[in-house]
Amino acid sequence: MDAPLLTAIQTPADLKRLSIDQLPQLAQEIRQAICDQVAQSGGHLAPNLGVVELTIALHYVFDFAYDRLLFDVGHQCYPHKLLTGRLGLLPKLRTREGMAGFPDPDESPYDLFAVGHAGTAISTAVGMARGDQLNGESDRKSIALVGDASIVNGVAFEGLNNAGTLNRQFLVVLNDNGMSISEPQGAMAAYFDRVRVSPTYGDFKKRAHKVLESIPGGSILEEIYHRSGEMLKHAIATDHIFEHFGLICVGPVDGHDLPTLVDMFNEIKDIDRPVLLHAKTIKGKGFEPAESDATAFHSPKPFTVDGCRVELATGQRSFTAAFADAMLQLMAEDEKIYTVTAAMGPGTGVDKLIEKFPDRTRDTGICESHAMDMCAGIAKTGLKPFFAVYSTFSQRALDQAFQEVALQNLPVRVCMDRAGLVGGDGAVHHGFLDISIFRPLPGAVLLAACDEPTLKASLRFMKDYDAGPTFLRYPRDSVAKSPFQPDTDCPAFELGKANLVIPPNAKPDLVILAYGSLVYTAAQVVEELRGTNDIALYDARFAKPVDIELLRKIITANIPIITLEDHALAGGFGSAVLEACNQAQLPTHQIKRLGHPMKWIKQASRTAQLAEVGLDKAGITHAILDVLSNHPAPTPPDTVAQI
Amino acid sequence: MDAPLLTAIQTPADLKRLSIDQLPQLAQEIRQAICDQVAQSGGHLAPNLGVVELTIALHYVFDFAYDRLLFDVGHQCYPHKLLTGRLGLLPKLRTREGMAGFPDPDESPYDLFAVGHAGTAISTAVGMARGDQLNGESDRKSIALVGDASIVNGVAFEGLNNAGTLNRQFLVVLNDNGMSISEPQGAMAAYFDRVRVSPTYGDFKKRAHKVLESIPGGSILEEIYHRSGEMLKHAIATDHIFEHFGLICVGPVDGHDLPTLVDMFNEIKDIDRPVLLHAKTIKGKGFEPAESDATAFHSPKPFTVDGCRVELATGQRSFTAAFADAMLQLMAEDEKIYTVTAAMGPGTGVDKLIEKFPDRTRDTGICESHAMDMCAGIAKTGLKPFFAVYSTFSQRALDQAFQEVALQNLPVRVCMDRAGLVGGDGAVHHGFLDISIFRPLPGAVLLAACDEPTLKASLRFMKDYDAGPTFLRYPRDSVAKSPFQPDTDCPAFELGKANLVIPPNAKPDLVILAYGSLVYTAAQVVEELRGTNDIALYDARFAKPVDIELLRKIITANIPIITLEDHALAGGFGSAVLEACNQAQLPTHQIKRLGHPMKWIKQASRTAQLAEVGLDKAGITHAILDVLSNHPAPTPPDTVAQI
Repeated sequence: MDAPLLTAIQTPADLKRLSIDQLPQLAQEIRQAICDQVAQSGGHLAPNLGVVELTIALHYVFDFAYDRLLFDVGHQCYPHKLLTGRLGLLPKLRTREGMAGFPDPDESPYDLFAVGHAGTAISTAVGMARGDQLNGESDRKSIALVGDASIVNGVAFEGLNNAGTLNRQFLVVLNDNGMSISEPQGAMAAYFDRVRVSPTYGDFKKRAHKVLESIPGGSILEEIYHRSGEMLKHAIATDHIFEHFGLICVGPVDGHDLPTLVDMFNEIKDIDRPVLLHAKTIKGKGFEPAESDATAFHSPKPFTVDGCRVELATGQRSFTAAFADAMLQLMAEDEKIYTVTAAMGPGTGVDKLIEKFPDRTRDTGICESHAMDMCAGIAKTGLKPFFAVYSTFSQRALDQAFQEVALQNLPVRVCMDRAGLVGGDGAVHHGFLDISIFRPLPGAVLLAACDEPTLKASLRFMKDYDAGPTFLRYPRDSVAKSPFQPDTDCPAFELGKANLVIPPNAKPDLVILAYGSLVYTAAQVVEELRGTNDIALYDARFAKPVDIELLRKIITANIPIITLEDHALAGGFGSAVLEACNQAQLPTHQIKRLGHPMKWIKQASRTAQLAEVGLDKAGITHAILDVLSNHPAPTPPDTVAQI
Repeated sequence: MDAPLLTAIQTPADLKRLSIDQLPQLAQEIRQAICDQVAQSGGHLAPNLGVVELTIALHYVFDFAYDRLLFDVGHQCYPHKLLTGRLGLLPKLRTREGMAGFPDPDESPYDLFAVGHAGTAISTAVGMARGDQLNGESDRKSIALVGDASIVNGVAFEGLNNAGTLNRQFLVVLNDNGMSISEPQGAMAAYFDRVRVSPTYGDFKKRAHKVLESIPGGSILEEIYHRSGEMLKHAIATDHIFEHFGLICVGPVDGHDLPTLVDMFNEIKDIDRPVLLHAKTIKGKGFEPAESDATAFHSPKPFTVDGCRVELATGQRSFTAAFADAMLQLMAEDEKIYTVTAAMGPGTGVDKLIEKFPDRTRDTGICESHAMDMCAGIAKTGLKPFFAVYSTFSQRALDQAFQEVALQNLPVRVCMDRAGLVGGDGAVHHGFLDISIFRPLPGAVLLAACDEPTLKASLRFMKDYDAGPTFLRYPRDSVAKSPFQPDTDCPAFELGKANLVIPPNAKPDLVILAYGSLVYTAAQVVEELRGTNDIALYDARFAKPVDIELLRKIITANIPIITLEDHALAGGFGSAVLEACNQAQLPTHQIKRLGHPMKWIKQASRTAQLAEVGLDKAGITHAILDVLSNHPAPTPPDTVAQI
């Protein structure tokens, strides 16, 4: 790599030795390094290209060995990582040995929090600001870098509202790229649009100012104003929404103008009140294909640049694509269906639905709680809402699923993509809680799809099921080609009934109940063991209610059972099986549960992660043979170590 | 009751027949009826007294047999209930036979959603507005009544942001009483304070106006303005924060001035854009003691008015009081402790800590997500955050407990009051999910206190435990006087170890593992059965990790076990026991789990609710005898009915 400036930076101290004139070249080197790597391995591209100058300027002015820098979402942390000694980890981006795609304190003390969900950085930074203050370290600056799509999330608002009460330095850098993950929805987005076309700092200088009138907290501001340099005086905004939260609003500034950014951070770093700096950036900046289609290049798969043609690598057909096509069909059939996403249009496939059914599809922006409640309201009017959401983000709408959905017994259909291990995004994005958190809600039905035919059949079941909410899960994976249930022959979902997919020859030696796509891994194992063992395989289909009649038959026949789930064992599908058997006074000692152990699974390929938790062919085979040996090796629970 | 106008109202149609001149008398009658009843039975007082005129005016102008009225939180719904045919249910307020304290669709079609958690009404109303629009019923008005303390909650902001995109009628009535449940914190509260001292509509008339300049969406507004009557023209606000969300802001108006409210609702009801009407009200209006101490009279116990002295009935010592005193002691001992509440100062006892340690205690307002993240930030600085929160509201911070707390393995101490059944508040407030949702988080420790000595000991354990987050639960109940563990003699909490509280005489016939305060109910049963059965009783103390060594001993000795918990059976403590035994290859057929079944438990006394779910003495006795009979009656799981 021809990156002489970047290569020489081991810590931010090395950066500080560069002259301001050298910084644009450094920016160019960082951009090139990221672009080259993401083209090879995939990863978050546009968000990182957009914050290169902001990150350089922050590290140039502040000292984050002491000061506190928090990234909201965190997918824009690559430049930060490259400036804090992790250039060597870049070639193995998003693998176990390489650089994580999100901040990771295990990688570097410069990463304070491992994050991936949006909207939280301001609140966390407020906590650190309060803690440092109480510890007598008010000189430790607190900075949160937040995108415009994140800042509309509820917890970000809560954080801003509480940040306004701090009586110390506190800086929110609003990275306003005007589009973020996908087109942000909502009135705030329109507001930002207006602000974006307003002049930036460079123009401000020429303007006359009426800074102090009509600003809340005028006297503090007046004092600060009089202490400020000319630059800041010209940059203080007087009509910014966040003033109402008690923040001094500065900008907008050009987020790619390094000299201005450095000067601006120098001027505002010592203001002993909460400040919001509004920076306008271009997502994908510096890489034309990403600039012109930042959504496609938000987190692309590997791609090649061939002159001006860019080819994204195409994968196999995903559950997401299958979901989109199934919904297109259902929405065409039934005009009562209304589909909602929370800023994950491309990720959930809902972007295709918006295109086709704009009146019956809605993107709420990163507002999962709102989206769930909106679905409840929609259901109340007799329509059929489907909420397409990543499993990991469904956690943000638990309380709404409890109150507005389950308590009213409303048939909101929650479709959880990326349920289970997610690969390169790592621990912040695994969908490992959805069964545990939604199963205890009275009236909730939980189901899983294992392939495209069952995805279609389960969605159809949900469409017609109006007795309460339904929670469907399917993984971040490609759909397997079904050897045992062609599309035309997939039996309809029947509430609480498992589906036999590999029948035994006679009385089986063992029965596998697989919940979700692990049916296919299990099927391979069953086929491989066919010569020696007769194993029946069921697609469990429902985690609630579980198929107690089937369990009764198997257990009464004294046949061992293995449950499989790509989910935490605590409170998951296997636990539901144990509970149902216990309730029915059936013994459980012949039941073995396979799922995620009580630990965080770091970034790697989904295949490697499944192997790590014993949910690959080898792990499942081992478990089967262990059970069949009738002398299972004792597995001491060692619960203290596995809290 | 001498309430001729109120008594004559069976439906809002009867209300509409009254003249505007009669409405103030009706307001007085409603106020008196509520005051008399709450004095007898307890209930929400001040919130209801504050919205009497708003509620009358809304029902006078709109038709909520067709239009949509949603209450945020819902504790201010008494006047609404009295105007919709439920005066007869008032005498049994908050009991099974009487009027629920929150909206309840089972009571009346005028209650659209059963609610109790704050901030959600706008989002739900947005959903209904969209649904009605799609159904061709755009003439169905949508109104959300929201308090100033609720509107700072994240989901409320998300809702406002999305409401701003509606292109139809939509009305948010902001009931700004300037204090709500307890003193609201945050910059927004300061903002509202400023707006509150600004002139109300009456004064507006005299002012000159520059309405249209600087308002976003000016052209739509201009059109509306020109269509408007003089009244509305004078009342449109030009400097309101919610304008930035795309709402037309009107007011503030005096929320107790009935003729003005009626006129104003008449003027704005047909605006085909989202409007926010800012009404200033006085919480506790019309009842002097409640006006002057609205926090004490937010939801008082029964009280008597004796001249100008008001005596609140005093109950037995509560877990809340015991928590406050224990924390006062710990905070005095350890200056690293920082305590946080989310607007539940009096409810959690944290108000006492704020008084004594104002620098180390913080009320975030109704911002549970923010509070959890702030605690994470505080923990990162080496301090020891305790987050005192109702169990039911902890659901709103699950995603933050996952990301900022558990994933970082930070020792945030979550103290969950009102865990279990809560009595009169009913289904919206039961703490029945906390074990299920927090147990799957790697590194999380879950514990419970059963009385004051264990509450103190558990808090001390949490203070010193720094290997990860801890989640403590205790009920909305009085602390029992301990016969078996005096304060001075309560053994320290040891990670994952249960505590034997009633030893058997010899090898016991049965062992009870009780998690939390049901230890005391079980103790009574064990004593009563002592003549015939030798039963050992353990205070389980930990739901994670469970005491697997103890379980191993009991099960290996072939002794039946009953687990007790005031929590959902799905994913709860008993489920954790089943999982641990299954993992350790111990049989579970002699384990019987008692807890909440899969259903919603309505308002009643906590005692009655515990009896309803079989967690009273009779229920526990029955379960013990059933197990001991060795011929347990089969309990068919009937899982489909119990989804």
